[in-house]
Amino acid sequence: MGQNLILNAADHGYTVVAYNRTVNKVDHFMENEAKGKSIIGARSIEELVSNLKSPRRIIILVKAGSPVDAFIDQLVPYLDKGDIIIDGGNSHFPDTNRRYEELKAKDILFVGSGVSGGEEGARYGPSLMPGGAKEAWPHIKEIFQSIAAKSDGEPCCDWVGDAGAGHYVKMVHNGIEYGDMQLISEAYDLMKRVGGFSSKEIGEVFAQWNKGVLDSFLIDITKDILAFDDVDGKPMVEKILDSAGQKGTGKWTAINALDLGMPVTLIGEAVFARCLSALKEERVRASKALAGPQVSKITDKKQFVDDLEQALYASKIISYAQGFMLIREAAKEYKWELNNAAIALMWRGGCIIRSVFLGEITSAYRATPDLENLLLQPFFKNAITKAQSGWRNTIGEAVKSGIPTPAFSTALAFYDGYRSASLPANLLQAQRDYFGAHTFQVLPEAASATLPAGQSIHVNWTGKGGNVSASTYDA
Amino acid sequence: MGQNLILNAADHGYTVVAYNRTVNKVDHFMENEAKGKSIIGARSIEELVSNLKSPRRIIILVKAGSPVDAFIDQLVPYLDKGDIIIDGGNSHFPDTNRRYEELKAKDILFVGSGVSGGEEGARYGPSLMPGGAKEAWPHIKEIFQSIAAKSDGEPCCDWVGDAGAGHYVKMVHNGIEYGDMQLISEAYDLMKRVGGFSSKEIGEVFAQWNKGVLDSFLIDITKDILAFDDVDGKPMVEKILDSAGQKGTGKWTAINALDLGMPVTLIGEAVFARCLSALKEERVRASKALAGPQVSKITDKKQFVDDLEQALYASKIISYAQGFMLIREAAKEYKWELNNAAIALMWRGGCIIRSVFLGEITSAYRATPDLENLLLQPFFKNAITKAQSGWRNTIGEAVKSGIPTPAFSTALAFYDGYRSASLPANLLQAQRDYFGAHTFQVLPEAASATLPAGQSIHVNWTGKGGNVSASTYDA
Repeated sequence: MGQNLILNAADHGYTVVAYNRTVNKVDHFMENEAKGKSIIGARSIEELVSNLKSPRRIIILVKAGSPVDAFIDQLVPYLDKGDIIIDGGNSHFPDTNRRYEELKAKDILFVGSGVSGGEEGARYGPSLMPGGAKEAWPHIKEIFQSIAAKSDGEPCCDWVGDAGAGHYVKMVHNGIEYGDMQLISEAYDLMKRVGGFSSKEIGEVFAQWNKGVLDSFLIDITKDILAFDDVDGKPMVEKILDSAGQKGTGKWTAINALDLGMPVTLIGEAVFARCLSALKEERVRASKALAGPQVSKITDKKQFVDDLEQALYASKIISYAQGFMLIREAAKEYKWELNNAAIALMWRGGCIIRSVFLGEITSAYRATPDLENLLLQPFFKNAITKAQSGWRNTIGEAVKSGIPTPAFSTALAFYDGYRSASLPANLLQAQRDYFGAHTFQVLPEAASATLPAGQSIHVNWTGKGGNVSASTYDA
Repeated sequence: MGQNLILNAADHGYTVVAYNRTVNKVDHFMENEAKGKSIIGARSIEELVSNLKSPRRIIILVKAGSPVDAFIDQLVPYLDKGDIIIDGGNSHFPDTNRRYEELKAKDILFVGSGVSGGEEGARYGPSLMPGGAKEAWPHIKEIFQSIAAKSDGEPCCDWVGDAGAGHYVKMVHNGIEYGDMQLISEAYDLMKRVGGFSSKEIGEVFAQWNKGVLDSFLIDITKDILAFDDVDGKPMVEKILDSAGQKGTGKWTAINALDLGMPVTLIGEAVFARCLSALKEERVRASKALAGPQVSKITDKKQFVDDLEQALYASKIISYAQGFMLIREAAKEYKWELNNAAIALMWRGGCIIRSVFLGEITSAYRATPDLENLLLQPFFKNAITKAQSGWRNTIGEAVKSGIPTPAFSTALAFYDGYRSASLPANLLQAQRDYFGAHTFQVLPEAASATLPAGQSIHVNWTGKGGNVSASTYDA
């Protein structure tokens, strides 16, 4: 990843110093990929630092966690005030918050930058999400925006916000990526188990979808994967163990959503779906013990596929709406000024979730920067309204046939909950007051002398009516 | 809570010393509730400690967090080696782990005990879940088991395990409580919005259910709540603001499930449902913008209610199965020896989730202590098989009518995923390998010379077939 970012910057006319603690790797790189390019090899930290002009701009790409701290500790003694350290790894944002503060005390400008796009992206245009010490931005803006991916000529890189905001937005990106992958997997599973489609046929459906509203990197590679055969001519995908791994960033997003009290249900279900997939042997045993319904065979394949496309599209809209709700809350909680249009544009190209869809989100936030929720914006409102019947048909079919669609289902439950002026939490509040005297508030329209609006009210539920006490005390 | 536990212990023949840092409260208690009972008032920590025989057994009931540490710090200078401190508050288990270690270094025996049942439970028989320094158990067993709730003559209190195990099990109890409350709320909402039932009619349904498999404290109070009228004769429940509060223990459970990689989806959805309910004003605005389907009116009310009962029962089985999966993983991760039958019995009486159902779980784990999963035990397997059609009908109806049932739906998705020998995670692993070279393993039955079993395999998906590399390196 580091090498590819260096080559990318050199291609754009920058002179770059390359350093790795394993000196051999530097030598090998200089003799091969870097040969003849504006790249200087450094065989020590002293050499790295002495070759850079002031303010020094140093990007580090090491494994997240203590290696980042260790490298910063090695680097700092050689730096001057106003030098810039950029962490381009997958650091957890609370670590970036901490490093930002620690280095600020030493007058070093610290930037935590999300980098997405894998090896290929790093080489030819990643999505870059830098945040931290804003004074650093004028010094790195040009190089960051020139090496970044472009979408309609605009760089997929902009300043995100203070402290750990860049790594925070990268974390949410990864959470959304978990969601997208789970949604695609559910569509695949329904075509396979309800539709009875072959891997090739499913690949063709994804190829078709990739020409429409779902046009995206993940749908594109899914079509490639389903078309890819092993040496024996059989689809490779059918040979792969159905036990998903994870590296934790989806989990971080779900935990953060719980911490901030935001209902980011789709990412939560996507992470849990990976957990359940990992219990492969237990599932195999359970499959022999637990009965399910007969899968109803599909009569109208075209309708089935069209409904499925709508289910995937509507669920995806929900997932991104939830992701931006989380970002909205994070901005409030952490006191960051976040620009949603810029974030959507950063995700529009270069990264794993890049899509035509993110172009629509960029437009939506450009047109209405203070938009309360993506679902309330005309484009997405109309899209989800149109998608609804296919979405409901698909889930209805899955429920009847016994095929799990946790992400499709939670997306729909969220949609129906979000558009419910009244939810049954009134009963839940009554229960909490009954057994724990947790108190409740009344609906404004139901307020009375004994049930004043805006106050915490406790009822003696086991006594007779009228045994009510109100106070402004919050339990 | 503290006063009630003292009165409870005094009723059982123990002499108890009562202390509160607000001396007035002690005086007031001694002059009123404690009058004539075997209770000694202490007006200082010295007095408290000097009145206790060795080894001293001190139970503290203060707000979770730093107040617990502050009180322990005040107490320790007066204690002798082998004295016992019991934290009966709602502490987060990592804090209990830490305090256990800190006090062990000072030769003080620390016990963290979950206490459930509210004021009423504390007074007449709570559920008690003690864990920590096992050497303390012989000294507190008799008093704990005598003041605890009883189920068929057996105390709802047993030793849980080392360090923070007691508070851990209490945390999972609270998570399950969140799930149960959400399930009941969804049933209520469907009867109200699909069935068109009045609050009184819904209360009658709950009263009926409380005589069957759902017989439990929460169903019982729900029936009371729905029958409770305000002074104007209108149902109180209909006047309550549908915005749920939370105190964090459900959130802790969901976060722990994510950390341990266990798919405890129902508690996750229950927590998120409270978060969504809290966005009341945004929901009211959204309700005016976002369209939904027409609610289909019910023709056969009896069938509708019977199906709903099965949906609630089946979802509850899933929730408890998930809870015990989490406990199983925690025992492994934290190296605790946890006795599932004892845990189920502790929850059987005294606490908020007490139910006939927990008697069945106790029996299941007594019959098969090393049971892999509740769903595989004959009683629950048969129950859920029988409940399936009503469960699927109910969710199908909710999906069609646009009523959110996040907990019912996630429970069904889990069931269908758990009993799937093959899930679509094979595609997801292919995607991860495609864009991030994360590698995958092959199905044992698909292994070959180029795709060896048990190894991490990478495929060059964009090249031609056969471009495969295998290694035992774990990405």
